Amino acid sequence: MTSIGFASSYIAPTGSPIRELFPYLSRPGMISFAGGYPSPSLFDAEGLQAAAQRALADPAGSLQYGATEGTPALRQAIAQLCGARGIACDAPDVLITTGSQQAFDLLVRIFIEPGAPVYVETPAYPAAIQALRLAQARIHEVPVDAEGLDVDRLRHQLETAAPADRPKLLYTVPNFSNPSGTLMTASRRQALVQLALRYGFLIIEDDPYGELHFGEQAPPPVYAAGQAAGKDNPVLYLSSLSKTVAPGLRVGWMLAPPEILRRCTVAKQVTDLCTSPLAQAVALQYLAGGRYAPTVERARAEYGRRLQALTQSLRAEAGDGLSFVEPKGGMFLWAACAPEVDASRLFQAAVDGGVVYVPGAAFYPGEAKATAMRLSYATPTVDEIKEGARRLGWAMRQ
Amino acid sequence: MTSIGFASSYIAPTGSPIRELFPYLSRPGMISFAGGYPSPSLFDAEGLQAAAQRALADPAGSLQYGATEGTPALRQAIAQLCGARGIACDAPDVLITTGSQQAFDLLVRIFIEPGAPVYVETPAYPAAIQALRLAQARIHEVPVDAEGLDVDRLRHQLETAAPADRPKLLYTVPNFSNPSGTLMTASRRQALVQLALRYGFLIIEDDPYGELHFGEQAPPPVYAAGQAAGKDNPVLYLSSLSKTVAPGLRVGWMLAPPEILRRCTVAKQVTDLCTSPLAQAVALQYLAGGRYAPTVERARAEYGRRLQALTQSLRAEAGDGLSFVEPKGGMFLWAACAPEVDASRLFQAAVDGGVVYVPGAAFYPGEAKATAMRLSYATPTVDEIKEGARRLGWAMRQ
Repeated sequence: MTSIGFASSYIAPTGSPIRELFPYLSRPGMISFAGGYPSPSLFDAEGLQAAAQRALADPAGSLQYGATEGTPALRQAIAQLCGARGIACDAPDVLITTGSQQAFDLLVRIFIEPGAPVYVETPAYPAAIQALRLAQARIHEVPVDAEGLDVDRLRHQLETAAPADRPKLLYTVPNFSNPSGTLMTASRRQALVQLALRYGFLIIEDDPYGELHFGEQAPPPVYAAGQAAGKDNPVLYLSSLSKTVAPGLRVGWMLAPPEILRRCTVAKQVTDLCTSPLAQAVALQYLAGGRYAPTVERARAEYGRRLQALTQSLRAEAGDGLSFVEPKGGMFLWAACAPEVDASRLFQAAVDGGVVYVPGAAFYPGEAKATAMRLSYATPTVDEIKEGARRLGWAMRQ
Repeated sequence: MTSIGFASSYIAPTGSPIRELFPYLSRPGMISFAGGYPSPSLFDAEGLQAAAQRALADPAGSLQYGATEGTPALRQAIAQLCGARGIACDAPDVLITTGSQQAFDLLVRIFIEPGAPVYVETPAYPAAIQALRLAQARIHEVPVDAEGLDVDRLRHQLETAAPADRPKLLYTVPNFSNPSGTLMTASRRQALVQLALRYGFLIIEDDPYGELHFGEQAPPPVYAAGQAAGKDNPVLYLSSLSKTVAPGLRVGWMLAPPEILRRCTVAKQVTDLCTSPLAQAVALQYLAGGRYAPTVERARAEYGRRLQALTQSLRAEAGDGLSFVEPKGGMFLWAACAPEVDASRLFQAAVDGGVVYVPGAAFYPGEAKATAMRLSYATPTVDEIKEGARRLGWAMRQ
């Protein structure tokens, strides 16, 4: 077996950094801020059971192979959903994907050859980094600050880049980013589109969390700013039902111009032929059944409550040891340790004390910057959050 | 937009040759032997509704993210199913995939870099050809005859190949292949394993149709022959519930040694994180509910009846114009036109006469050999099959 050569990316591939935390998660009594999972208490199982019954009442629609692009009715429903987010689009603009992860992967396939330069906001979603790494892209980091992707810094990077380092793609999560929790301002969204048009790159806007705002709605998507800027929209929009309905469906989507959608469809044919028509039919029936809006509303309220518990407890327990910008939505708090803290010793003390989080290094493609941590408040309950914060405070005092 | 370069495979990608037939399929009154779809009349919608209710009664198991490898219970159930096919395996040998198409794609990802030589039985499943093409593999054809992959011919090809042309992978569908319908003999299965061990390549055994036998059971899988041959099994086994339960689930799987499974899991993380846990839970409940065996039995009987209608009608209507080996299972009849027939004129006459099939050229990676056709008897009813054969006979007389 060992005589068969793996492709170069797979000779010694590194798995997800979060999977490396699995042994800690299974320790008895461990409180986890590590997972990126939505709270199962928010799943509307009853509504989904009813949706599944309606879906399976049409066996030809839910059990047969479907079009690679997605079922026409779901593409239409998703176009409507995007309309409510400020995007004018129609069914033919939508490609249904097996989670938005697949949408990103399809774009990597059709655009990236080894050595291609790609810009990525950092700290960044680890599975995006990993997909780019396996594709052997050259990843350039663009930092995020309290207002989202630092567009001035990006402009400088673009101005000074050697022609061979000019990116084809830039990846960003403008709404309540994973892991930074930041929300990109409206003016930066417009400035980002202008840079894309000027320097000829495409923006991959990944938006799984936008509807999970705790106060005001997020500004219109970067995609909408791209539509407003002229006829050649440089933005590809990805989203998913994973954080609003349920990850178990694996229903995501992409909005893109026809020539890109067509190529992604060709790539998707060889990847999985089509996204589960059963899952698509359940999603469609759920969206049509009128339970989506109240389910999202419940998630907003619950995650808002959990975030509040987390920030209050952290301030009480960790004091100046941790600093953070309070996110206005989403599932993640990004907290920086005070400079005197040894991040790897802190992590060890934390797991010894019964609490686990994801060390910041997991969110950078390059050299580890492990002085921050990602705390997810989506999965633990309010009581677990308070106890977890106490344990974290204890660990910081060690 | 056009200033952004696509990866070389995607500059002018060719889509599925079968999608090109879609315009014909939608003509009113058209009878189609073209689809590779199972008959919707065989879907056990009632059993699947019950399975979905049980699945959704456990929201944490069906609606949350799941392990990339698949849910432990489904991996166990699939290992048992493989046991009934003559393979000794256990849950850790199983990777659940989004259809067996994904399993093939993952193997291509982890093994194939541009220029890598791959051997493929021909005529071959078009989506396999397409996946290899997009990965820029160099595809070498190994012909199939009435006893399956021509192993003597393969031996000769291997003996005479330049070292750089020795394959890493060989792709075959030993049971009732798509499109040839052939069943590989037991002795060829063993000989094929010996060649793989001797020349150091891996066999991808794709087995979606093995349980759909009309008479005797198929010989044990090539994978089982590989297990019997020694400790380093050179066979990777792919299968799916698409042809036995329903394609709409998109539940397939792979059996492979740990080091290959681990790399496919890394690749699957970036592809779709995990196969729909909802679809996995429905599949598990369906398998556990005891309805799988009678459903497969019903499919065998029905497809056997349809094949009989097709072969009898073709003999009556097309006479010596078409020759074929009657398949002993599966969904496809491969029919060769008499030498004097102009295949492209025949296709045009057929669609003018109201019947469509897939011209043979679609099943070859290289130069078109369009003197044969694939006729699927799985989707049309017996009456449609008889009428379709009449129309085909009419077309041949034109």
